[in-house]
Amino acid sequence: MSSELNPVTPEGASFVELCEHHLAEVGGRAAEHDRDGSFPLEELRALQESKAMAACVPAELGGLGVRSLHDLVVGINRLARADGSLAIAVNMHAAACWLLAFLGPRFTARGNQPVADAMTGLLAAAGSGVVFGLAGSEPGADFLHPLTTASRCSDGWILNGRKSFVTSSPVAGLFVVRCRVEERTGPQQGFAMVARSTPGVAVKETWDALGMRASASHDLVLHDCRLPEAAVLVDSQSWGAWSRVLLLASIAGIGGIIGVALGLAEAARDFAMEFVTTRRRAPSNRLLAERYPTQQRIAEIQIDLAAARAMLTRTYAAVDAYLGDGEDQAVEDLHRVHAEVQSAKAFVQRKAIDIVDGCLAASGGSGYLNRSPLSRLYRDVRAGPFMQPLSPSEAPEYIGRVTLGLPP
Amino acid sequence: MSSELNPVTPEGASFVELCEHHLAEVGGRAAEHDRDGSFPLEELRALQESKAMAACVPAELGGLGVRSLHDLVVGINRLARADGSLAIAVNMHAAACWLLAFLGPRFTARGNQPVADAMTGLLAAAGSGVVFGLAGSEPGADFLHPLTTASRCSDGWILNGRKSFVTSSPVAGLFVVRCRVEERTGPQQGFAMVARSTPGVAVKETWDALGMRASASHDLVLHDCRLPEAAVLVDSQSWGAWSRVLLLASIAGIGGIIGVALGLAEAARDFAMEFVTTRRRAPSNRLLAERYPTQQRIAEIQIDLAAARAMLTRTYAAVDAYLGDGEDQAVEDLHRVHAEVQSAKAFVQRKAIDIVDGCLAASGGSGYLNRSPLSRLYRDVRAGPFMQPLSPSEAPEYIGRVTLGLPP
Amino acid sequence: MSSELNPVTPEGASFVELCEHHLAEVGGRAAEHDRDGSFPLEELRALQESKAMAACVPAELGGLGVRSLHDLVVGINRLARADGSLAIAVNMHAAACWLLAFLGPRFTARGNQPVADAMTGLLAAAGSGVVFGLAGSEPGADFLHPLTTASRCSDGWILNGRKSFVTSSPVAGLFVVRCRVEERTGPQQGFAMVARSTPGVAVKETWDALGMRASASHDLVLHDCRLPEAAVLVDSQSWGAWSRVLLLASIAGIGGIIGVALGLAEAARDFAMEFVTTRRRAPSNRLLAERYPTQQRIAEIQIDLAAARAMLTRTYAAVDAYLGDGEDQAVEDLHRVHAEVQSAKAFVQRKAIDIVDGCLAASGGSGYLNRSPLSRLYRDVRAGPFMQPLSPSEAPEYIGRVTLGLPP
Amino acid sequence: MSSELNPVTPEGASFVELCEHHLAEVGGRAAEHDRDGSFPLEELRALQESKAMAACVPAELGGLGVRSLHDLVVGINRLARADGSLAIAVNMHAAACWLLAFLGPRFTARGNQPVADAMTGLLAAAGSGVVFGLAGSEPGADFLHPLTTASRCSDGWILNGRKSFVTSSPVAGLFVVRCRVEERTGPQQGFAMVARSTPGVAVKETWDALGMRASASHDLVLHDCRLPEAAVLVDSQSWGAWSRVLLLASIAGIGGIIGVALGLAEAARDFAMEFVTTRRRAPSNRLLAERYPTQQRIAEIQIDLAAARAMLTRTYAAVDAYLGDGEDQAVEDLHRVHAEVQSAKAFVQRKAIDIVDGCLAASGGSGYLNRSPLSRLYRDVRAGPFMQPLSPSEAPEYIGRVTLGLPP
Repeated sequence: MSSELNPVTPEGASFVELCEHHLAEVGGRAAEHDRDGSFPLEELRALQESKAMAACVPAELGGLGVRSLHDLVVGINRLARADGSLAIAVNMHAAACWLLAFLGPRFTARGNQPVADAMTGLLAAAGSGVVFGLAGSEPGADFLHPLTTASRCSDGWILNGRKSFVTSSPVAGLFVVRCRVEERTGPQQGFAMVARSTPGVAVKETWDALGMRASASHDLVLHDCRLPEAAVLVDSQSWGAWSRVLLLASIAGIGGIIGVALGLAEAARDFAMEFVTTRRRAPSNRLLAERYPTQQRIAEIQIDLAAARAMLTRTYAAVDAYLGDGEDQAVEDLHRVHAEVQSAKAFVQRKAIDIVDGCLAASGGSGYLNRSPLSRLYRDVRAGPFMQPLSPSEAPEYIGRVTLGLPP
Repeated sequence: MSSELNPVTPEGASFVELCEHHLAEVGGRAAEHDRDGSFPLEELRALQESKAMAACVPAELGGLGVRSLHDLVVGINRLARADGSLAIAVNMHAAACWLLAFLGPRFTARGNQPVADAMTGLLAAAGSGVVFGLAGSEPGADFLHPLTTASRCSDGWILNGRKSFVTSSPVAGLFVVRCRVEERTGPQQGFAMVARSTPGVAVKETWDALGMRASASHDLVLHDCRLPEAAVLVDSQSWGAWSRVLLLASIAGIGGIIGVALGLAEAARDFAMEFVTTRRRAPSNRLLAERYPTQQRIAEIQIDLAAARAMLTRTYAAVDAYLGDGEDQAVEDLHRVHAEVQSAKAFVQRKAIDIVDGCLAASGGSGYLNRSPLSRLYRDVRAGPFMQPLSPSEAPEYIGRVTLGLPP
Repeated sequence: MSSELNPVTPEGASFVELCEHHLAEVGGRAAEHDRDGSFPLEELRALQESKAMAACVPAELGGLGVRSLHDLVVGINRLARADGSLAIAVNMHAAACWLLAFLGPRFTARGNQPVADAMTGLLAAAGSGVVFGLAGSEPGADFLHPLTTASRCSDGWILNGRKSFVTSSPVAGLFVVRCRVEERTGPQQGFAMVARSTPGVAVKETWDALGMRASASHDLVLHDCRLPEAAVLVDSQSWGAWSRVLLLASIAGIGGIIGVALGLAEAARDFAMEFVTTRRRAPSNRLLAERYPTQQRIAEIQIDLAAARAMLTRTYAAVDAYLGDGEDQAVEDLHRVHAEVQSAKAFVQRKAIDIVDGCLAASGGSGYLNRSPLSRLYRDVRAGPFMQPLSPSEAPEYIGRVTLGLPP
Repeated sequence: MSSELNPVTPEGASFVELCEHHLAEVGGRAAEHDRDGSFPLEELRALQESKAMAACVPAELGGLGVRSLHDLVVGINRLARADGSLAIAVNMHAAACWLLAFLGPRFTARGNQPVADAMTGLLAAAGSGVVFGLAGSEPGADFLHPLTTASRCSDGWILNGRKSFVTSSPVAGLFVVRCRVEERTGPQQGFAMVARSTPGVAVKETWDALGMRASASHDLVLHDCRLPEAAVLVDSQSWGAWSRVLLLASIAGIGGIIGVALGLAEAARDFAMEFVTTRRRAPSNRLLAERYPTQQRIAEIQIDLAAARAMLTRTYAAVDAYLGDGEDQAVEDLHRVHAEVQSAKAFVQRKAIDIVDGCLAASGGSGYLNRSPLSRLYRDVRAGPFMQPLSPSEAPEYIGRVTLGLPP
């Protein structure tokens, strides 16, 4: 009876198995990448070769065909035990694939075949090795108000702006850029698909942070980038408002973000367990595990871990069940699902931070040294709450309002 | 997408439906029973008539045949929303039935038909309306060291001792008494089945507590009670040690105890939601729900509630899966399951206390008045951590040791 | 080296000594008053006879002449160890006296001798045994927006409204009623001094709460009460705004409220210490104090208690120093002082609740029974956060804004 | 009315003023020293020139003559706002000086002039620029059981062992080494004074940690170091037991350690306040400070900060009062004082960690970048709980036992 997360679909099981297969390789250089702030390029290439990177690409387009967000979360969770930075990179790419695979048939059903075809094209690219870099955040703006603009020009669009925290920026072949579409009727929410080779695209290597140092979450500068007509998806909602696509994107992306927090906590827990069951202290030379304070600390870690796992797996099982119903989702319902997902994010990330902190304490100072993985995990796990779309300052208001039946 | 607990077996669904059917009646006099410290006798009778009391009695013996502990938890959880005291009373009885129904076939399989038959007899009694009163606790002794003694005499046993916190004592027809069996080879763990009519049995009405006031958890005094040979089950372990039966009894009984805590929290949450979405304050006359601090508080309640529900449902789904395997359970494995159950108990009870406290705060002082159900819920929910077998001072050591692979 | 609070002025030392002298008598019937919801009338009379009730009345008017709010807090803190309800009643009366004694000379200095004389008259009444009942709260209104109205009539004022939580209502000879003064230029903040014998005054015995049950904090109904001109103090600020007098009243009254919380925590701690150092448990019969979990719990209680004491004594030492400067206090400065006082209130009340809860846990279930003082302390201590003027939902915004230099 | 700590003696005021004078210089290169793990050598030299390093050296021996531990704490607190690593280095040196100045006259009074003279000699050395490096910790041993041995030889002592976390190791001229003295009657507690130039002394540059990176807390290897007779102080207690000197050393050293935690929290708070009162966010462009969640977070930070300051200043004011009584301190009394000090350590360090974490959250992700001082403060402040003599696993048992009147 282990409380570990487990996949529930055959495709998910294949993906999780692959992730576990990569663990030793990925973990082997995590400390080095953390120290140097270097992106784990070779490890990512290995994930591409094994098709783990193509988890959510349909099988017919070269992927594993994972359709369960729950199972995507489980695989990302496994990877994070070895390297949180790489796991985040894989997640942002895979979640984008999942969204394309989810939305495509719906666009077809609504008769919008061109968009559906474009999505298929992007998935095929992903299937053949293109990495997606998600460019959502901007300094000084919240998730619903991107300041990067897409303006129409004679033959398409011109894109201008600066994005931050663009994970995988060194290897991304295509950037998915949240933007403000300047329509005559007023600004709309939008997504621009920007090939790396587009003139005006530049990656500025700004990422030097407390943790998640190997994620290469640099800035992306977009200067008068000219894009073809089909490269910008104009969303159904105006700038500043939540749309179905934004909600789905958030629901798809956050699962893995939570899974990463959990994976970091699990890695810390495994390390602490190993530590206290092998180290002794003078003069009694009893194992640390034999001491009451250690037992108590391990108990609290175990309780938190079980709760975090239960919260995450139950929430994403419900997400799968909801999204699998086949009907188009009402925005109001999506808000409710999204509030549950945000609740899971808040809960699991806090607990993950607590768990790593408790493991650090259990290590009795040895974990504070840089040669211990705990010092990296302590820095990495603190990143989670800052991840979009809602900050810890914004999420409670959102969850509270949705719960209370007020407009979010 | 509600995070509420739901039954997973048909028998469980019937039980939960029955419980929900009783809610209005049970809730109607909960405040009165709490004030007066009176046992909800009529409500219990109604539960007997509907067979809800016989949830875990096999259908052929007059019950509902619920075999899923998970589903027992769900039904108890529903009852607790109306009256925690009654829910606890039902749980202790139903969990005893579950244990008898679970163990009987195993005794048959091991060739011990007399004990199996005795268990069938007890279940038949429960099916025809006998209420079980569990007598586990004693002042000044922990769970593994009952001081009540069963000594052999010419024609059976003599029982002496004093038990406390015997829920349902006014209506119990049969007391299940944890005792120390004085064998020549040393004291053993044991259970005595004591009919209320046995000479020497007396209920002392000592129960006057902060909360759970309607549970009539009085003292049971046993003075030279003579019992027939078959009335004492001598356990396989010596006094002071965990046995399979003790572990199974704890696993069976704690689920509903946790379910009660959750139900009290849910009731508080529903009341607080109703309160803040209907009350306004001068001079703005805005709804309380429109205020940021209220939204934030509701968000935290929602997060805690979702986590508590996930932890409880996942843990008992795993318990069902483990127990359903058919094999006899190794004590070592049962300890692991029991540690998970204790983790769920610690987590959910703490969260339930926090949730009720948050609801009290959300009510802005009105909940502090006795006319508000919140004041009762605040008192009731604090009882949970004191419930056997492990106190909050003992549980962390137990969970920690089991997790660390040390003898518990 | 005890961390207990101690008085710093000779008058304060006399007051604290008196309070300690009364402890045994006050504590003797606290459980009875709590159970019956009866006001501790005889105990209050004894405090009047010893002049403890007249702590803040100047010596020349028959009191002890305590001018240090810090020392008022210390004495109230002592009383609360025996009975929180009585301590609150004494505090509200004494804080009102303190405010009158503080403001009188300042009105004289500003040439407003009639108001100063009225204040002297009130203090003389207090010196000769009149008890003040503070009527601040109202259902459905916050502190700054009382809905009770004082309207001018030919020969004075007509007062109408309903106040709640009027501590000491059975014995109060004079009610100090926060009201909205209906001036032609718009509503103003105001205080009405209402003799109990005034036609139209009625006490409705509504107080039946979770805790502080002996405080008789009933409703006060004011129906067309005619008051003389001098009985209403029209404040300098309009209705809804903070004035100097309101800030001073809050600063004066809250100290004792915090002191009560601390005293309840100290009483719980003393009880728990006595419990764990005298009780043993089978089979080892070791003292509970010898068990690691007990030691750890006592340590956390000790840490919290030391921090709560330090916060309270340091804050009110600073209040004394600030108010003793002699100058009229700028409203802006008073807000800063008031924010410190609110911080102390938030901190100490939270810690007091935690401490009592920890003591309950340390008592291992015995404290949950009504015969234990812990069950009363657990209920009493939860009242504190609801006490005016700022609720736990309002205080953080106030403290935050003042700290950030924004208008509160 | 600021809640900042302030000195209470003239000598202390001079020291604090000096520390404040150095702040800009010290802070200027703190980020650089943190990044490179370089010791702030020039900054320390400046502190030596200004005599700040000689705070606790008597004036006649070239120091400032600070005798108040409270005031030592205040000065260290100021330094930590600029650089926690340097502040720790200064504290360990200054606390050693304080202890020598405190103990010297007591040895004289007891007729042990040689030891008193040796202490004067050490203080004179400190007055003329020698830096003390405290070597207390060892891997795999607790504070009371040092494994480094001092054995008698023909002309003095031979010292062998390895110490860790020896702050200031690059500049220390004299190491104060906690050791186990091998006496014929059994091992005793002891201190060895080891000049850096002693053959067999080697500093191993092992310090590479999560935070406090500039403190150069390297390992000290002692291989057959021959020391003169007078260089080893054989303590009155046997190895493994607390002695008066050990308790005084702990009381003297911990104050500044707590002051460092507080200073880091204050620096984080100042940074966060500056941040939220100057940054705006699209589309409203309101200041972050105008947002409710920010106000609330600042309020919690303010509450925690006020409580931490009150706890620290009150505790060390009591320490000064206790130690100033002139009498020799009974070990039992010293344990009580030490338990208060440990309580203050536990409380303030936890709150400091919370405050820095809250400031990081208030910064909305910007603080997570290495260019923000918050990322350094977040790492630095986590070091505190690991500092000797009692770990967070050991302190609760110690505090609890002393509070309960049990032998520690």
